[in-house]
Amino acid sequence: MAEPIFDRLALIGIGLIGSSVARIARAQGDIARFVVANARTEATLARVAELGIADLCEIDPARAVEGADCVMLCAPVGAYAALAAAIGPHLAPGAIVTDVGSTKQSVIRDVGPHLPEGVHFVPGHPMAGTEFSGPDAGFVELFQGRWCLLTPPPGTDTDAVARVQSLWERCGAMVGVMDPAHHDRVVAIVSHLPHLIAFTICGTADDLADETRQEVLQFAASGFRDFTRIAASDPVMWRDVFLNNREALLEMLARFTEDAQAMARAVRWGDAAYIEDKVLRGRKIRQALIDLHQA
Amino acid sequence: MAEPIFDRLALIGIGLIGSSVARIARAQGDIARFVVANARTEATLARVAELGIADLCEIDPARAVEGADCVMLCAPVGAYAALAAAIGPHLAPGAIVTDVGSTKQSVIRDVGPHLPEGVHFVPGHPMAGTEFSGPDAGFVELFQGRWCLLTPPPGTDTDAVARVQSLWERCGAMVGVMDPAHHDRVVAIVSHLPHLIAFTICGTADDLADETRQEVLQFAASGFRDFTRIAASDPVMWRDVFLNNREALLEMLARFTEDAQAMARAVRWGDAAYIEDKVLRGRKIRQALIDLHQA
Repeated sequence: MAEPIFDRLALIGIGLIGSSVARIARAQGDIARFVVANARTEATLARVAELGIADLCEIDPARAVEGADCVMLCAPVGAYAALAAAIGPHLAPGAIVTDVGSTKQSVIRDVGPHLPEGVHFVPGHPMAGTEFSGPDAGFVELFQGRWCLLTPPPGTDTDAVARVQSLWERCGAMVGVMDPAHHDRVVAIVSHLPHLIAFTICGTADDLADETRQEVLQFAASGFRDFTRIAASDPVMWRDVFLNNREALLEMLARFTEDAQAMARAVRWGDAAYIEDKVLRGRKIRQALIDLHQA
Repeated sequence: MAEPIFDRLALIGIGLIGSSVARIARAQGDIARFVVANARTEATLARVAELGIADLCEIDPARAVEGADCVMLCAPVGAYAALAAAIGPHLAPGAIVTDVGSTKQSVIRDVGPHLPEGVHFVPGHPMAGTEFSGPDAGFVELFQGRWCLLTPPPGTDTDAVARVQSLWERCGAMVGVMDPAHHDRVVAIVSHLPHLIAFTICGTADDLADETRQEVLQFAASGFRDFTRIAASDPVMWRDVFLNNREALLEMLARFTEDAQAMARAVRWGDAAYIEDKVLRGRKIRQALIDLHQA
């Protein structure tokens, strides 16, 4: 077995992502010698203790990070500023602070200022998830073959970046490094906008008259169902993602809305060639995904 | 084995749906004694002959329906008017004409006037499909546990409706009867709008600058991928569906767009409670689907 990358890993938040990392650390032994789990509620920590996926459960984030050479924020991104303020003074010199949030400019904005000199900051985003949440939802295969994007600020210690990269590679992920603003635009179109659309269409369907709504559920298999799967995600996490990737998300939604209106116009005026061309384009994108082994 | 429902079944169009019905008829023997396949091209018919899923392949729709006691239109709905005009004079007295199109008011408008006195018209819509098309795409399990909606015009012969219902039940489907206008509204929200959105977002992503587009494909697993699956569907079929369910589709898109704009406003102004509420609603709809065994 390879030497563990870290002595003491503190997971601040232990939901789907955090508990998957904890399970992998426990199963493999090559991530960290000791894993501390922190959660917002005693109930969650009690469940983590029952599951036996951490060496120590600690409700106070400031105490959870003490002595840790790696601290990973795994809470909804809207909680990061307060968490960073709480843990900042308690971080060990030379510790690495990383995270798993879906927005990266906001994380740099919210966490960076609270980190003392000598602490290394390596923001990260494992692009993996399911529609389930909480410490029971995690599993060791979650990151297998998935991307994890790191967005270290310029001048970040290269050894710190390499160690976080190793952590994710040992979790089974492929690691890429990206500029945070570029990251936020890419995830706005591949992830945040599809989720916004999925949440929205569920509401649109729910607002229809009672009779139609029942039938929407009854006949959902014809396309609608695929949208509801991603619409079943964690409300607080997604609320925070939307609010913390506002500019990129609104831009992508505006582009999408223009395109949807152009399609509506083609439907209204019977522009068959336009519609057919757009459907063909969808098909080509799907084929490109298959060629890249992403579908 | 039960007696076959029909003596001679003519499938006008033999793609995903038509070839699945043909395969079921061959496998079970209780649908029809003799199956005629018609297609637009000799190449398709040659493939059907190779597959051995029909008793007779006939390129001329007028000849294909001769002597058939059941004729099932399985072509894109935009082709129905011309097909109905071609087959009308050749239909056997007492024959049943049914179809599998995703729009039902347009089918009644386009097919009804071409059917001679004494021919029974039972429009139908099996709500099943995959993103694949053509005679190779069909399979005998396609309709298992799925709904098939029938929209017979008032006064349709009840025995004809019962026989079409039996056909779909023997294919494994659950059968419902619905008013055609109501059908078109329900499918507009559960199927046509999700497809329009999926085609559109593929185009929106494809229009982004080259670098981002590559990354969209690379990181598609985070939500976008779910949308591309349904975007890979048949262009001619979907072009025809959109053009033939125009009013209901445009209404549902308008409702959705209003809701998406309200969400955009909440994101812009930081209305956390609004966003959270919408995500929670998506989750409830998903749960309702699970409770109904539709997800």
